[in-house]
Amino acid sequence: MPYDPTVFTIRESLDPGEFIFALYYLEGAASDLLRKAGGIAIGQTTGTWVPVSQETPELRRTHVGRVVGVYEIPAYEDRLPSESAERRFLVQAAFPVANFDDQLAALLVMVFGKVSMAGRIKLLDLTLPEKYARRFAGPKFGIEGVRELLGVERRPLLMSIFKPCLGLSPKQLGDLFFEQARGGVDLVKDDEILPDIESAPFEARLEACLQAAARAKSETGQRTLYAINLTGSPDAIFAKAQRAVSLGATALLINVLAVGFDVVRALTSDASIKVPVLAHPAMAGAFYPSPVQGISSELVLGKLVRLAGGDLSLFPSAYGTVPLLRERTLRIGQQLTSPFYHLRRAFPVPSAGIHPGLVPRLIDDFGLDVVINAGGGVHGHPQGTAAGGRAFRQAIEATLVGRSLEDASRDHAELRAAYELWGTRAGVGE
Amino acid sequence: MPYDPTVFTIRESLDPGEFIFALYYLEGAASDLLRKAGGIAIGQTTGTWVPVSQETPELRRTHVGRVVGVYEIPAYEDRLPSESAERRFLVQAAFPVANFDDQLAALLVMVFGKVSMAGRIKLLDLTLPEKYARRFAGPKFGIEGVRELLGVERRPLLMSIFKPCLGLSPKQLGDLFFEQARGGVDLVKDDEILPDIESAPFEARLEACLQAAARAKSETGQRTLYAINLTGSPDAIFAKAQRAVSLGATALLINVLAVGFDVVRALTSDASIKVPVLAHPAMAGAFYPSPVQGISSELVLGKLVRLAGGDLSLFPSAYGTVPLLRERTLRIGQQLTSPFYHLRRAFPVPSAGIHPGLVPRLIDDFGLDVVINAGGGVHGHPQGTAAGGRAFRQAIEATLVGRSLEDASRDHAELRAAYELWGTRAGVGE
Repeated sequence: MPYDPTVFTIRESLDPGEFIFALYYLEGAASDLLRKAGGIAIGQTTGTWVPVSQETPELRRTHVGRVVGVYEIPAYEDRLPSESAERRFLVQAAFPVANFDDQLAALLVMVFGKVSMAGRIKLLDLTLPEKYARRFAGPKFGIEGVRELLGVERRPLLMSIFKPCLGLSPKQLGDLFFEQARGGVDLVKDDEILPDIESAPFEARLEACLQAAARAKSETGQRTLYAINLTGSPDAIFAKAQRAVSLGATALLINVLAVGFDVVRALTSDASIKVPVLAHPAMAGAFYPSPVQGISSELVLGKLVRLAGGDLSLFPSAYGTVPLLRERTLRIGQQLTSPFYHLRRAFPVPSAGIHPGLVPRLIDDFGLDVVINAGGGVHGHPQGTAAGGRAFRQAIEATLVGRSLEDASRDHAELRAAYELWGTRAGVGE
Repeated sequence: MPYDPTVFTIRESLDPGEFIFALYYLEGAASDLLRKAGGIAIGQTTGTWVPVSQETPELRRTHVGRVVGVYEIPAYEDRLPSESAERRFLVQAAFPVANFDDQLAALLVMVFGKVSMAGRIKLLDLTLPEKYARRFAGPKFGIEGVRELLGVERRPLLMSIFKPCLGLSPKQLGDLFFEQARGGVDLVKDDEILPDIESAPFEARLEACLQAAARAKSETGQRTLYAINLTGSPDAIFAKAQRAVSLGATALLINVLAVGFDVVRALTSDASIKVPVLAHPAMAGAFYPSPVQGISSELVLGKLVRLAGGDLSLFPSAYGTVPLLRERTLRIGQQLTSPFYHLRRAFPVPSAGIHPGLVPRLIDDFGLDVVINAGGGVHGHPQGTAAGGRAFRQAIEATLVGRSLEDASRDHAELRAAYELWGTRAGVGE
């Protein structure tokens, strides 16, 4: 029998608490879909291309991957449209939790290591049992924790990004920070490309921004967190993060896909890192955009970020300049905020090309637990950065009380200026 | 927020023991995949197209269907190939076990009732929690029980079908039964179209075949079960089955899709029905063949037959005259035989156009736990029915010891005649 019943089975045969389920999209000239599906399950676990003597039945039962579903698209039953046609199908495979440690890299290697290079195959989703997920602390703050730090209960948060991103001195960054805070911005983040640069060294800009935050707080009452960008080797990132926290840092920014999920995870699960961590999606475009290869956006920017402990996850909005289908942004949001065992909910941060006219759509899509994040949409306001922040806050408040932006513009000069400039159009902005 | 987080969630958020998971294929001009997916989950449970006052949050939480996955095919992320292109996707929905009773019709109505008519949508698979599956006794005999009745431990069983199927008298049927049994056939079944007909009334043919079976047993030692076709109203079927058993019947045949899963289930779960039940797939072609509509073959001929308590499930083989893709036949086999809580394994019976030359492929596909089932392949043998049976038994024995049919033909006149006539070709036969 070519189809080992240990490998080919049905989902009911496996204790859902003891397996990680992975869903793949495959296409290609497969004359034998089951063989191809089995190649994933076996090849990613115990198997090699020849029988080896050490593979005992016991070892196989404990460790081999299983194929629990093979679904052709469309679901041909009695004949194929042509013998030579490419076939498209989804495979649901199951991997014993016994095969995994607590490293996210190991998870990815197990479910999508070598097989990621085996032609057109894309990892679409993972279902993790509680036993496995318990190895991860997840977000230390999450949505509720970040709200508590800011004292903001029931409205979307507003975040802005330093623009220009390179070349400003610590003093200039501090001044710009103050303007953003004065405009009602809840979080200010470094640009993700900002390294520990000579013109604005890490500690100097941290100090300048913390002072600006304190001044804004005392003058306006606005609390504003500063997410400083962590760069360098994994060790340097860790040391820098600890130093920043000891100097009073209020948040950290990290390029999760560039530095690796486990670096972020080490950071977020360390007791000394007592501030929220923002996960930036830089380089995510190397993973998800192909419809037939890579790893889905809901995994790399949703579930895996949350497992790694990101308190906020940035991703392209459906309405700006970096394209992502609306459904995909919503699924990322669902991965970040749906009940997921003990893991706190992480804030969805749909980003890039956001201006006040898009606020109603973002709130409609994500509800109140969303961070409205803008760079050019704040700093490019005709009346300046603080006005740019205020225009966003006015847009948020109008939306929450059910007023149209057009209507609210009549009462608010800042919103009116933004509205006149950008309207409610998608795809404008930076 | 248009996407109610109670409805749109991730699989980890639901206790797998409390939900039935259904996987659908959908295609169409969906501008909003999530809305379409939500329509299934809500529309098949609590929802209607307008809010109704009785739908309390508590009622909703307890009963509403959930969308746990929406996977576009291919997995587009940042753009669609064209705005007007048809979209294809899989939806994984979850339905609370609290919504179900113990009726299989209710299961189908809940997961694929109204929605089956909503355009191009096909139900591909169901995952049932143990709590739900425990409501079903499943096969009373299963593979092991049928083997025990026959005293056959480690070889594929051989089944044959009366041919011609209409017009024979009880005496003629008895004689033909004897020939089949003498040829080494383990089970003889009525043709599924044979009603309780004047020329061969139910009790008369039962008596004739049981006598023939007794004669064959005493003369040759071969035990042969007779699966008599149950027809009539549900009440009549039940009464007839009980009467047959009291008269010594050894098996029952039923057209599961024509009479309904719950009729079969009532029969198989009744203590008085102490014989195996064969489920015939007549009319299954009204359910599974469309790649974009209906219900998959692995459900209607695999999982649901097993739940209903069929001990043997007939389905088209990949090598005969009724088409079904090989992968699909294998998945039916996996649904029938994979571990599935307390439910006994049911025999896969790949059928239609089977001749001895196909035996090696069937054993290669299904292993030893398969029933080789033939009509014309037995009765159309050049040396007659008994020789036809023997040719099959010779083919089975040769395959089990690793001999090619060509080689074994040299030693066995019956196999040789069949091999010369049909070779090992697929798609020949009746």
